[in-house]
Amino acid sequence: MELNMIYEPEELFEESLDKILEWREEKQYFKIRDELLKFNEADIAEMFEELLEDPEFIESTIVVYRLLPKDISVEVFSCLPSDDQLKIIDGITDKELNYIVQELDFDDKIDILEELPANVVDKILEKTPKEERRLINTFLNYPDDCAGTLMTPYYISLQKTWTVKEALAYIKREGSEAEMLHTCYVKDSGRKLIGIVSLSNLVLADDDVKIMDIMVTDYVWLNVYDDQEEVSEAFKKYDLIAIPVVDKEQRIVGVITVDDILDVIEDENTEDFEYMAGIIDLEQSDKEYLDKSVFQHVKARLPWLLMMMVALMLTGAIISGFEEILSQVIVLVSYMPLLMGMGGNTGSQASTLIVRGLALNEVELEDTLKVLWKEFRISFCVGAVLSLCNFIKILLLDGQPVTVALTVCISLILIVAFAKCLGGMVPLLAKKLNADPALMANPVIASLTDMVSVLIYFMIAKIVLGI
Amino acid sequence: MELNMIYEPEELFEESLDKILEWREEKQYFKIRDELLKFNEADIAEMFEELLEDPEFIESTIVVYRLLPKDISVEVFSCLPSDDQLKIIDGITDKELNYIVQELDFDDKIDILEELPANVVDKILEKTPKEERRLINTFLNYPDDCAGTLMTPYYISLQKTWTVKEALAYIKREGSEAEMLHTCYVKDSGRKLIGIVSLSNLVLADDDVKIMDIMVTDYVWLNVYDDQEEVSEAFKKYDLIAIPVVDKEQRIVGVITVDDILDVIEDENTEDFEYMAGIIDLEQSDKEYLDKSVFQHVKARLPWLLMMMVALMLTGAIISGFEEILSQVIVLVSYMPLLMGMGGNTGSQASTLIVRGLALNEVELEDTLKVLWKEFRISFCVGAVLSLCNFIKILLLDGQPVTVALTVCISLILIVAFAKCLGGMVPLLAKKLNADPALMANPVIASLTDMVSVLIYFMIAKIVLGI
Repeated sequence: MELNMIYEPEELFEESLDKILEWREEKQYFKIRDELLKFNEADIAEMFEELLEDPEFIESTIVVYRLLPKDISVEVFSCLPSDDQLKIIDGITDKELNYIVQELDFDDKIDILEELPANVVDKILEKTPKEERRLINTFLNYPDDCAGTLMTPYYISLQKTWTVKEALAYIKREGSEAEMLHTCYVKDSGRKLIGIVSLSNLVLADDDVKIMDIMVTDYVWLNVYDDQEEVSEAFKKYDLIAIPVVDKEQRIVGVITVDDILDVIEDENTEDFEYMAGIIDLEQSDKEYLDKSVFQHVKARLPWLLMMMVALMLTGAIISGFEEILSQVIVLVSYMPLLMGMGGNTGSQASTLIVRGLALNEVELEDTLKVLWKEFRISFCVGAVLSLCNFIKILLLDGQPVTVALTVCISLILIVAFAKCLGGMVPLLAKKLNADPALMANPVIASLTDMVSVLIYFMIAKIVLGI
Repeated sequence: MELNMIYEPEELFEESLDKILEWREEKQYFKIRDELLKFNEADIAEMFEELLEDPEFIESTIVVYRLLPKDISVEVFSCLPSDDQLKIIDGITDKELNYIVQELDFDDKIDILEELPANVVDKILEKTPKEERRLINTFLNYPDDCAGTLMTPYYISLQKTWTVKEALAYIKREGSEAEMLHTCYVKDSGRKLIGIVSLSNLVLADDDVKIMDIMVTDYVWLNVYDDQEEVSEAFKKYDLIAIPVVDKEQRIVGVITVDDILDVIEDENTEDFEYMAGIIDLEQSDKEYLDKSVFQHVKARLPWLLMMMVALMLTGAIISGFEEILSQVIVLVSYMPLLMGMGGNTGSQASTLIVRGLALNEVELEDTLKVLWKEFRISFCVGAVLSLCNFIKILLLDGQPVTVALTVCISLILIVAFAKCLGGMVPLLAKKLNADPALMANPVIASLTDMVSVLIYFMIAKIVLGI
């Protein structure tokens, strides 16, 4: 028995990669192929990702790719990120490309056709059977990121009048065409979905039981235009392996399987991470960090920085308005970073928790008052501890008068309270306005807390120091 | 045909909830039960979450819970978050609790036993058959968050010498005990895992084919002590529905299914979100935002704020050191927020992208130089645009002399370059030191950029303004 240990031994992978890189220098392409074939397709794809990184060796990497057995080359292709797929497409013949595309699973096929230039797509579609061509065109027309782009149209349909024995015989005959066998779907004469049966239940049931007696009729379904976020929420909530997708007339048009949802979840999270850091990639390209050009990075990062810049200029203008106070008590300047920094940090703690809570449906709009009350109490505790530390430090270490210490500490309590409550509220407000909480929260909170922090500071200074 | 539309109509859910809340006031418990039973178990659980929120009504909610059909009450229980599970446990009899626990899927059973007080666990285990009791004790002893705590021990094992027909007959006989039928596992006499067969392939294969001829031997496996992060990475990489878990001797001890991984992925992401915002929940409680007490929130947020406070105090001290310059050119103060703010924002953009890239395995340690070179070029472009805007604004709008504009703009370019490169490097350094990049990146970057920003600013001011 030969056992290829795949996932565990990272070292094995690294070792092989080193060998392959060496052999590539020596153009030992067959040796490379044999080494690659020791691994699973997903791992081979990872090797190719590494090999395709060096522009100098793209051609020789494609030679290796063409040496792979045909069925494996298709699997490897489907595991590659889209920019590496394009590199390979550039290097292979039309015939090879055509073979790969025809053999890909339907959802992968749609993904790659969406990336290809129109003339290449036309050439491939020419060689596709008429019915599949129509199907492909329908799928290519679904808006980005909707359920329609995630589903496969190849699933098993059963008749409700069949017995389990008939159904299993049908699956044995037709099942190899389907991409999804775990669940079978029962349609009425008008293609309306009336029930679902899992393959497990078919196997467990007695031969002469009727499908209609074991099918589940209160199944979970998705609409073809549902956003991918709703799709991933349905999977998270119902713990299902596959969910059928229906059109407006409740007719089944495809099936989404859970393995395609893991990537969707990570994409949605990446978007939230980037939004919260003020990175807005309008192209929505799913290119990896290193594959994006400097220009693309700049384009995604500048808009928010420019907005923040304007807000910070306004903060500067507010400070200018209080220059007189500052020139009288110049030491106040040295506490500005503390107050502004604490405002920003406490605010983003609150907003992150609420943005995340909203994303996971743990916090809802109706909870607004609860959130406000909770953040208010939290901010009081946090503000009190921070102020106490600072009060002692300003008096003892800095040797400043009590009035200065009081100014800083009263400001700190007020700023923390303002920042935490604002941080808790803005994501909820964004949600209320149907904006993305992750996108709207941070710029608004960061700009407002900066401005309000200096305002509070100087107002308190005016009062306490009597300037 | 009755079709319960479950996922789509949010309104239906809200409508029913309103009705139920009304009936609860009137103690119409049977009406509530009938309304609940129109929904799927996951939705009923969501209703119970809402109902259990109000401490006043916990008892009446438990009355409703006890009115549910027994099988549904178990399903609903397993869908509830753990704090709501505990509320229900407090309200039901030992007998009812025992029934629920015995009926739960094995992995859910382990989860709830881990949360229960030891004496309750002992009482439940007393009534558990001896073999299962031993199994439960083994599972309870696995460290938190490892593959062992995610797996189920109830899967289908086949013999390699069986025919497909024999295998299917075996599954029909024994399968209802298993929690996982989609994939079957083939063991040798020493319980070593030698291959896997999907149920789909069994159904598709001819009756007299031997299992050993259709089983896959280069399967992906996980070790029982693998961290849940590795588990979720394996699922993401290999697009599988189930992965077997083996011990050191390659003996299969359980199976992890993909539906349990969706929650793990979201937990890992939540942890990263919180870390990046300086929230460090040492208790690692998976309580939701609203269910955590004010004290728990404060405890999770204060440590980082105190660290940041010390850093900001140092920044203040640096400013104090340059008080003379400030008192001579007081206008410099009003540009401080801009410079510090831009440093912080550009730095966290870079660090977020690298932390995320590391989490998704898109960026690796070997890429350090590439990241540095990319961030350097990006920072140059970003810094140039921001400086140009500010140069014009300071000269024209603020009416300041060229020397002041130059001071601010040169500082800005240097600060952005420093922040972006630091932001790119720190997560990689954390990874190198085997620390969590999400946890280490932001505090280090935020503290350092603040200090370095004011240092750069005043040094440049000294040079350009000749003070």
